[in-house]
Amino acid sequence: MQLNDFLKQTSEWLKGTGPNSDIVISSRVRLARNLDKALFPSRANKKQSEENLEKIKEAVQKVNLLKKSLLLNLNDLDNVDKQFLIERHLMSREHALRPDSKAVVVSEEEIVSIMINEEDHLRMQVIQSGFDLFGAWEIIDRIDNELSEKLQFAFSPEWGYLTACPTNTGTGMRGSVMLHLPGLVMTKQINKILTAISKLSFTTRGLYGEGTQASGNFFQVSNQVSLGHSELEILENIRGLIKQVIEQEDQARKTLMQQHKQLLQDRIFRAIGTLKNAHIISSDETIELLSMVRLGVDIGIIKDLDRKLLNELFIIIQPAHLQKIEGKKLTTQERDVKRANLIREKLGG
Amino acid sequence: MQLNDFLKQTSEWLKGTGPNSDIVISSRVRLARNLDKALFPSRANKKQSEENLEKIKEAVQKVNLLKKSLLLNLNDLDNVDKQFLIERHLMSREHALRPDSKAVVVSEEEIVSIMINEEDHLRMQVIQSGFDLFGAWEIIDRIDNELSEKLQFAFSPEWGYLTACPTNTGTGMRGSVMLHLPGLVMTKQINKILTAISKLSFTTRGLYGEGTQASGNFFQVSNQVSLGHSELEILENIRGLIKQVIEQEDQARKTLMQQHKQLLQDRIFRAIGTLKNAHIISSDETIELLSMVRLGVDIGIIKDLDRKLLNELFIIIQPAHLQKIEGKKLTTQERDVKRANLIREKLGG
Repeated sequence: MQLNDFLKQTSEWLKGTGPNSDIVISSRVRLARNLDKALFPSRANKKQSEENLEKIKEAVQKVNLLKKSLLLNLNDLDNVDKQFLIERHLMSREHALRPDSKAVVVSEEEIVSIMINEEDHLRMQVIQSGFDLFGAWEIIDRIDNELSEKLQFAFSPEWGYLTACPTNTGTGMRGSVMLHLPGLVMTKQINKILTAISKLSFTTRGLYGEGTQASGNFFQVSNQVSLGHSELEILENIRGLIKQVIEQEDQARKTLMQQHKQLLQDRIFRAIGTLKNAHIISSDETIELLSMVRLGVDIGIIKDLDRKLLNELFIIIQPAHLQKIEGKKLTTQERDVKRANLIREKLGG
Repeated sequence: MQLNDFLKQTSEWLKGTGPNSDIVISSRVRLARNLDKALFPSRANKKQSEENLEKIKEAVQKVNLLKKSLLLNLNDLDNVDKQFLIERHLMSREHALRPDSKAVVVSEEEIVSIMINEEDHLRMQVIQSGFDLFGAWEIIDRIDNELSEKLQFAFSPEWGYLTACPTNTGTGMRGSVMLHLPGLVMTKQINKILTAISKLSFTTRGLYGEGTQASGNFFQVSNQVSLGHSELEILENIRGLIKQVIEQEDQARKTLMQQHKQLLQDRIFRAIGTLKNAHIISSDETIELLSMVRLGVDIGIIKDLDRKLLNELFIIIQPAHLQKIEGKKLTTQERDVKRANLIREKLGG
């Protein structure tokens, strides 16, 4: 398996299936783990880091679910490749910044990915399509169990798993859900909801992870606290919160359909009209328009388009993807043209 | 023949044929004439006006080209009907304002129309498709000659035809050409050209006649002076000027195609994408978008659309047309929806 093989497939989590996939794009669980009696990556010297890297690589490759996975040393990747992995949500921007003694492991269908020597020695994540935190949990728990047999993790009976940043100590777990909330945005209820979410000790972020702005009506909600509760309790808390957000989004969409159907149709069809016809388009505009089209599909106004294609478009219109598809470096202007061509091709414009 | 029959046809001047019809929409010649020894309409009392009206009606209906024409007393028309005639460029706003003792005569294919008791006793116009001032002149000259045998026109050997406003005295003629100049607008040369035109004693106006703003890149150019030259000299002057404007527009379009083809394609295809998909649209936005689409057809970027349909759309998306088509009064909001439906239907959106 090679990195470029990912270009030919749609990540499992983008398939647009799973529970509540009209509102929930994906569910993600990640665990932070560190080797016992080893310095955290930011404190370890080069030799120690290399030793930790090799030890973890060896263990990871023996995990049942990861037998056919792709293992990449970050120093072997060029900037476009690294950006490509970030755009596919398989690793963090931080991981790419200082590539020495770092690696990333990605399972065949991109369900599992493990960053080695990021902030912690291991950052493992599982992403599932739709609203399925417990499905993601089951997989990551199995991987964690297998790895525990091969590696000794830093663990304190009092504090739980020890991590480089204290906010991750305890379970070392973060559960997060990517929501598409155009109804709450259009009915101007979103700020009220986001405020409530943050008061309940959850954080919201944009489509492209930590520090990014919400765009295209996408919001990622995750737990802030990983200490003091079991993994299942934390996930159950997120699940309960998200269930309420889903209900409110559902209600907002119904209200819009009942009270502003023509306006909604107008925005949705204009969006698809522009996407099918533009010859130059930025990623920001694309994401805004795709968001409207996805809403159109979700509420049945657009009938001849499937969610998988739309989800895939959100990913492949990004800079590194465009450059991988084209097989060469592209300037911003060239990307805006290539992006428009690709969208027309995919949507049959 | 009835007023509503016009709904089923495309006016002759909108057929998109004729010389230079990629840039020149239509050519129009109008003559102002008054009855000898009769007070101008603004000075005549009701009885005198009615007598003049009857006299002119009788004569007009005997003209060969007008045997199958439609004669309408303005007092018999409701507001939508009057607006409908204005939108089809068959009469002026002023004529509709005070309908007493006024009439309008329209030939079968809407080539000829005559307003009776507008500012002058007779205002006759002929509109032809494309750049064809002399074609229009031939027809109106024939009608004028026939009418001169039946009516005694106010004429001074020294001043020529006498008219209510001195600016029309002399030939009583105004020739005008409706130009579509998106190339000059996009290359930002239009203001220079309009300034030059006005220095040469020609006036420019918008798509919908005197006092209207240029919209959708349409400009109507006509002579200001009707005295001191023969009709053919005046028309020859306009023709010469317009020929130069056409050449410059042609050059601007070539420059855009060579230097900004992608940008041009982007604007043109986005325009058609929006027109084919909008569910709510104002007339201003429609006209701007139709202008881009027409440019696309004219320069060969859009291949499967004909000019006649586009020209027709410019007319039928107007308020009174929408209401006549729907057969009832519509609010602005209702018209924006009806307009979008009609455009989608016509363009196969």
